[in-house]
Amino acid sequence: MPTTTSTGNPVIQLLLTGNEVMSGDTVDSNSAMIAQRLGQYGLGIHRKVTVGDDTDLLAGELTALCHASDVVIVNGGLGPTVDDLTAEVLARVAELPLEEHAGARAHIESWCGKRGAAVNAANLKQSILPAGCEIIDNPIGSAVGFQLLVHDCLVICTPGVPSELRMMMDIVLSNMEQQLGRFSSGSVLRLQTFGLGESTAQQIISDAKIDWPAGVELGFRAGAPQMEIKLTIADQRLASQQAACRDHLYTLFGDHILGEGNTTMAGRVLQLLQDQGKTITTAESCTGGLIASLLTREAGSSTAFHAGFVTYANHIKASVLDVQESTLEQEGAVSEAVVIEMVQGALAKSGADYAIAVSGIAGPDGGSEEKPVGTVWIAWGKQDDIRTRGLCWPVERTLFQTMIAAAGLDMIRRMLLGLDSEPRYFSQRAQKIS
Amino acid sequence: MPTTTSTGNPVIQLLLTGNEVMSGDTVDSNSAMIAQRLGQYGLGIHRKVTVGDDTDLLAGELTALCHASDVVIVNGGLGPTVDDLTAEVLARVAELPLEEHAGARAHIESWCGKRGAAVNAANLKQSILPAGCEIIDNPIGSAVGFQLLVHDCLVICTPGVPSELRMMMDIVLSNMEQQLGRFSSGSVLRLQTFGLGESTAQQIISDAKIDWPAGVELGFRAGAPQMEIKLTIADQRLASQQAACRDHLYTLFGDHILGEGNTTMAGRVLQLLQDQGKTITTAESCTGGLIASLLTREAGSSTAFHAGFVTYANHIKASVLDVQESTLEQEGAVSEAVVIEMVQGALAKSGADYAIAVSGIAGPDGGSEEKPVGTVWIAWGKQDDIRTRGLCWPVERTLFQTMIAAAGLDMIRRMLLGLDSEPRYFSQRAQKIS
Repeated sequence: MPTTTSTGNPVIQLLLTGNEVMSGDTVDSNSAMIAQRLGQYGLGIHRKVTVGDDTDLLAGELTALCHASDVVIVNGGLGPTVDDLTAEVLARVAELPLEEHAGARAHIESWCGKRGAAVNAANLKQSILPAGCEIIDNPIGSAVGFQLLVHDCLVICTPGVPSELRMMMDIVLSNMEQQLGRFSSGSVLRLQTFGLGESTAQQIISDAKIDWPAGVELGFRAGAPQMEIKLTIADQRLASQQAACRDHLYTLFGDHILGEGNTTMAGRVLQLLQDQGKTITTAESCTGGLIASLLTREAGSSTAFHAGFVTYANHIKASVLDVQESTLEQEGAVSEAVVIEMVQGALAKSGADYAIAVSGIAGPDGGSEEKPVGTVWIAWGKQDDIRTRGLCWPVERTLFQTMIAAAGLDMIRRMLLGLDSEPRYFSQRAQKIS
Repeated sequence: MPTTTSTGNPVIQLLLTGNEVMSGDTVDSNSAMIAQRLGQYGLGIHRKVTVGDDTDLLAGELTALCHASDVVIVNGGLGPTVDDLTAEVLARVAELPLEEHAGARAHIESWCGKRGAAVNAANLKQSILPAGCEIIDNPIGSAVGFQLLVHDCLVICTPGVPSELRMMMDIVLSNMEQQLGRFSSGSVLRLQTFGLGESTAQQIISDAKIDWPAGVELGFRAGAPQMEIKLTIADQRLASQQAACRDHLYTLFGDHILGEGNTTMAGRVLQLLQDQGKTITTAESCTGGLIASLLTREAGSSTAFHAGFVTYANHIKASVLDVQESTLEQEGAVSEAVVIEMVQGALAKSGADYAIAVSGIAGPDGGSEEKPVGTVWIAWGKQDDIRTRGLCWPVERTLFQTMIAAAGLDMIRRMLLGLDSEPRYFSQRAQKIS
């Protein structure tokens, strides 16, 4: 193998192509996805280069990368249009002709057939590949991936569509494994949390003054609504320390941990409901169906979720959920009394065991001095135990909806787990109004 | 100037640094921000290179970039920690000593002072810069930006924190303008479409055999659910041709065009409803609240959307929307008869003018031989004009929900526009079952 880093790891480089990436119309999330998957095997990306859809530029970069790498992953440029150049560029760099690949053609015919569409010239362009390359199946898209050894460097060409790339990564990793020999596998633990920011998490870690073993790395990735805590043990010989490190993290972040791996808030809530044989319903005003949508994105949600109500207008809160006109008039739609009646109405109309109700002012308009944009009331619980919380969380409209939907689900999660402690975000990230 | 592209434009390259970007813990959105701002002046980024926080690697890349560019924008590595290496790397490449910059020190003292914090060693590290560099004010962060001419190439070092970078971009652009002379400004038109794939769009363009003016570039960016068509006219002298090109695109893609700029499907539907003084309601089974959520993400949606129903379970379709038990039993929940009754029930319960109802099998489970995963019925319309369509669109669960929610909204859009033509995707991308 031509190149290894000083740590003995193989040199893996990325070549990203696409005018839409260069122009800033698309934010490249693919290289992060690739890096994360490699990271699970203790492998890192040495360097990445991004250029637009230009044959000369791409060929120059790829030639240089092949001479300096064990593996080059090319991302993008597999599509049917004239500015999709990857096959042409790889053929030029490898000094091989382009020809129709029978497997790629069969894939395209089958893909079009399943959709009842005729195969057109644009589709067929995707079957014209460098002679002798090996294809990589694309279970959801028309463009197969492909790979070729060029000067001892394995060049793997992958699609720019993120969902297609994701489906292909297992095969890509397995092919890399064959090329590179078995990866020395480190260990990575990912914890999903809600209600903490990066700086708070960092402070909690600092304050705890824990003596982490050498070679252990902690990272925080704040998203909306969740934050991921990532514990990486790069050296396999230290893998036995993972359990102790994990215990520390559970002690420090306790109630805020939703689960490990890719756990989502909605997935965790559904799992708890299913474990307890219970069902949930939603009564949404300012989140407008987002809580129901998050629940039903999860496969198998129908066992625990049967009904949701989006009562955006006041008269609908009354007519659909039997919220009293007098309550609406006296307290206003964004009030504790209204969300309690929304929970009661949703429970009665759906027959569910638990309910979440939210009513708030998502903005940008609709605020007042008394109830500014960001004001929201949440009620949750069951027939004989309805709890409430008022908050002011003045952030941009869709972020507000995202965070409030997650907060509502978090209340149910805590209730199902029997947690009575106050979540940190009520005091730190949002202003409590009750 | 050492380098210009064949079009006479200056060569601008990006050097991004950060271990968190290389590991995939952070998705780089900064380069998209920079590219978009440059694009407003008709400038493009020629190439970008991303490496981790390693002095040798960074110095090697920066040296090569300086020799091949008019401007290099470095992003990241300005912070207070030991792995923030940009100043050190620039000093090495420019063969200049590092020294305390009085202006940078004053900025840090003022920044700490405003926060009532003492200036510490970590802060002060950010005032140690290559001798003779010019600083760029950072109105919200402690690290100033800085720039230096290296071998006739302007190197501009900017912060990795996106909000700080955003605040600095005006100055960066103005400094670049001084270096490069006045930018020649191009023009960009973006059309949002639904129901077309990239290959179909490419085929339509090819088949039309239009003689596009030289210097006009067409690009397609397929997302889920929308596809963007982007028309770029790089040379300002051709800007007068935009109207003619635009007309061509409207002729070719007609009904599929939702609007220009950032138009969303839900935004377009709401705008049409608002223009006509009408309201809409939703009755969702397999999309589980997503259509309601898409509508209510849009600011101001409350004028046209008052109520939505998520009737996920059969007994809820009956109890909440008055779908007949006999219809459910005889036809099954995923049937034309049931979605018609869902529309009727939703209209009656909400008092809305229009309704969309969907019932389908999102998978991965729940399919049968007669009704496989991906089968869906959509009904839409108003009291005296309810239309239906059955489809089979066998894609991954969340993509299915995304596409079907958009298709439902598209049906209403077409109805509100009085379009009677069959959308292309019914025949090409999904299999029609009615």
